[in-house]
Amino acid sequence: MSAEKRFTPARACSLDQVPHWDLETDVLVVGFGAAGACAAIEARQAGAEVLVLEVAAAGGGSASLSGGEVYVGGSGGTDVQREHGFVDSTEDLQQYLLMAGGPAADAERVAIYAGNGVSHFNWLREQGVPFKGTYLPGKWIEPPTDDTLLWSGNEKAWPYVEKANPAPRGHTVQFTGWGGGKVLMQVLCERAVQLGADVHYNTRALTLVVDAGQVIGAVVREEGVVRFVRARRGVILCAGGFICNSEMVKRFVPAALDCELPVTGGNDDGSGIRMGISVGAATLNMQEFFATLPFFPPESLVKGIFINGRGQRFINEDSYHGRVAHYVLRQPDGRAWLLVDNEIFGRPVIQEDIQIAAVGETWAEVERELGLPEGALVHTVEEFNRLASTGNDPYFHKAAEWLRPLTEPPFAALSYCKGDFQGHAFTLGGLATRPSGEVLDADGQPIPGLFAAGRTACGLPRWGEGYSSGLSLGDSTFFGRQAGRKAAGQSVV
Amino acid sequence: MSAEKRFTPARACSLDQVPHWDLETDVLVVGFGAAGACAAIEARQAGAEVLVLEVAAAGGGSASLSGGEVYVGGSGGTDVQREHGFVDSTEDLQQYLLMAGGPAADAERVAIYAGNGVSHFNWLREQGVPFKGTYLPGKWIEPPTDDTLLWSGNEKAWPYVEKANPAPRGHTVQFTGWGGGKVLMQVLCERAVQLGADVHYNTRALTLVVDAGQVIGAVVREEGVVRFVRARRGVILCAGGFICNSEMVKRFVPAALDCELPVTGGNDDGSGIRMGISVGAATLNMQEFFATLPFFPPESLVKGIFINGRGQRFINEDSYHGRVAHYVLRQPDGRAWLLVDNEIFGRPVIQEDIQIAAVGETWAEVERELGLPEGALVHTVEEFNRLASTGNDPYFHKAAEWLRPLTEPPFAALSYCKGDFQGHAFTLGGLATRPSGEVLDADGQPIPGLFAAGRTACGLPRWGEGYSSGLSLGDSTFFGRQAGRKAAGQSVV
Repeated sequence: MSAEKRFTPARACSLDQVPHWDLETDVLVVGFGAAGACAAIEARQAGAEVLVLEVAAAGGGSASLSGGEVYVGGSGGTDVQREHGFVDSTEDLQQYLLMAGGPAADAERVAIYAGNGVSHFNWLREQGVPFKGTYLPGKWIEPPTDDTLLWSGNEKAWPYVEKANPAPRGHTVQFTGWGGGKVLMQVLCERAVQLGADVHYNTRALTLVVDAGQVIGAVVREEGVVRFVRARRGVILCAGGFICNSEMVKRFVPAALDCELPVTGGNDDGSGIRMGISVGAATLNMQEFFATLPFFPPESLVKGIFINGRGQRFINEDSYHGRVAHYVLRQPDGRAWLLVDNEIFGRPVIQEDIQIAAVGETWAEVERELGLPEGALVHTVEEFNRLASTGNDPYFHKAAEWLRPLTEPPFAALSYCKGDFQGHAFTLGGLATRPSGEVLDADGQPIPGLFAAGRTACGLPRWGEGYSSGLSLGDSTFFGRQAGRKAAGQSVV
Repeated sequence: MSAEKRFTPARACSLDQVPHWDLETDVLVVGFGAAGACAAIEARQAGAEVLVLEVAAAGGGSASLSGGEVYVGGSGGTDVQREHGFVDSTEDLQQYLLMAGGPAADAERVAIYAGNGVSHFNWLREQGVPFKGTYLPGKWIEPPTDDTLLWSGNEKAWPYVEKANPAPRGHTVQFTGWGGGKVLMQVLCERAVQLGADVHYNTRALTLVVDAGQVIGAVVREEGVVRFVRARRGVILCAGGFICNSEMVKRFVPAALDCELPVTGGNDDGSGIRMGISVGAATLNMQEFFATLPFFPPESLVKGIFINGRGQRFINEDSYHGRVAHYVLRQPDGRAWLLVDNEIFGRPVIQEDIQIAAVGETWAEVERELGLPEGALVHTVEEFNRLASTGNDPYFHKAAEWLRPLTEPPFAALSYCKGDFQGHAFTLGGLATRPSGEVLDADGQPIPGLFAAGRTACGLPRWGEGYSSGLSLGDSTFFGRQAGRKAAGQSVV
């Protein structure tokens, strides 16, 4: 029988199945992405022997394919925020993150992150991560420049803006264009290695080893050979989410199937989560996912209005694009369009071939072409125009800067109906953990010897509607650090 | 240390912790509710020795406090359906149940249930469950009579009616008024005992016993004494859902916290689900729950229209009340009202003290009193009235029989805003299982020796929006039977 069949993530290996230990370490880190690298750095600095397993031939994980944004602030602001005139209190960040966490927000995790965001940002710089220190105004999906600070979430959008003073909190690694994540991960991985973490590439963790309810190691396959690794102090699962595992997506987060483009480095196969489940870990929010249908830039399109098959608006379009995406995805019969007029029209840069479902010299023509109930679209647009011309949106509270009547023909409806868009997605559900990374059982008690961080855990980002760019890198690096310290036997922040 | 502390559902007990077996059986059934009783009956009939643990002083579980409706049909119809002129094809039932299961519907489970509904209904009668055989027309939450057949779901409502020919499928146990569940459970529990199931009341399953990845028994506390029970062929978890466990509700299904009234016999503490998790079981749809805000009877209220804080309608009000409830619960800022005119007004029987948020001689007055944007409510009502007078609802597809313009002053808005209603809820998430009851690990493979049914499993009812009355009793009794057969070593249907 092959090693994969004998040892599978969903079935833990008991000590009596271990013939001998091939390798021993204090802390075993599974996955050398953002969470794993930071866990390794901290565990090494706490004096622990650290062995890292990475299934790929190089480190970096999904984080290395990201834009390299880190969502931080609070404590009055990072020096970048303050230099550009933005004040950011811990209370505002905390309130924002609580709302961003949705119904299942973790108040303890939020409080710790909000209170330590600035010192975490400084820590990243101390590791050598470059941030230019400049500010990029405007509304972006990802910065096209090498600037640092940008608005990357729902801060200025209703209802967030009503409860928390807004500040830009996306801090992007210095790199021109998309690709800051690669720089971030080069620095963090090199730092971990430099500190003495022993990284085994091309090595897959097959399953955990347990003894008397305690996780004491893992069975791994390195260059085709099965090896047994003992972890004296603990195993930290930092193996990413599960967007690459179509079977898991279908079972746990079927709504994400509407988004065909996975956001991943290629190894988010859910093995970390499955290993946790095998030893009695509870999972949280497995149905949640990040999604986006990048309907802008150009940012003029944000001035358009989304309607559904009933001609109703359903979202303030100046919300974070991922929030808009979740609202679009749940419209009845999967039908939604972005209405634009000639002045704001432009092809979405990220999906230039978006289908134009209707064009007309009047909104009534567009309504007919879409096959909507008579008057439905026309009434919605007329009401929007009437109020927008006074700078008000009492229905959806779109901010005044994005309000402009749609009155310049020709008019058009861009199709965001199911099947017409290219959706991007990754998973947000994962193992239940404490902020320390301790993995929790179904009673909320830690499972001895087991830790998790990054998308293997259900972390700070846990609600698709509340996502902000930079939240996953912020969460993975910060809580990866906590898990590394805790597993090494040190106290966390 | 108390037994509860030494042995907890979230931590399995290993064989080396078992000093001796106090009791031995073939099949151990945890919980003597609908699923457990049916599992016991089938396992006994398959020749297995059966021991049942029931934490309460008597059998019946939450099912005994239910209305006693069982959702069955297909195969052309039960004899009750056919006697009253209703044809019900297996394909229609199957299509309906697939839609009712939502994005995570289990096609295999649905097909088995749809194909065997009639024989299951006949089996229940063979056990001695009384059904009068009569038909009760109208739209009910629960039948006030001792009639059998009624419309108990979304069958006649859009979008279900467009995809599946409708038939009434709620089959209610003969009992006048609310309480058929008690009769059902008396019959089924007595039958299990008569067949030789050994039932231990006042006995709590503390945790499962595992050996080499196989479930081989349980640790129980009976009359204060800890006992070790060996199960030679398997353990079937039929311990209900987790609506009574506020800590679990908060973690797994926080949205249900808006409904203050748990639907339960009192012991849905999630211990069955936690025991499953402890041995590596995957859970599914933990965020889903049944909810209802019973806004009718009187059924005239179904002719009203729900609007949200934007003055928008959001649901065809003739949908099943539980579906309406989920739509109401998710409206922005928790604001929703049922608009009625003088002709259809009546106080909801189940919540007579519902708050009347606004009254007016015109709809404009009602709109002002509710503080809605000017024209929002008025336009929605006018548009509804215009179309309803022609018998059409192109927006929400409410059926013609419930369409009537709201034109008789005075007009009123009944408040279904957060905090103003009494919501009822129970949980729908649970252990991943095969239709045979085999509990599945994170890879979808059966965990040897472990089975689950009823609300401990994620079964046929797994999506709040798609619930129908009778689905949980139908699922629990039918799949309880399958688990009993499978655990006893027999093939399932």
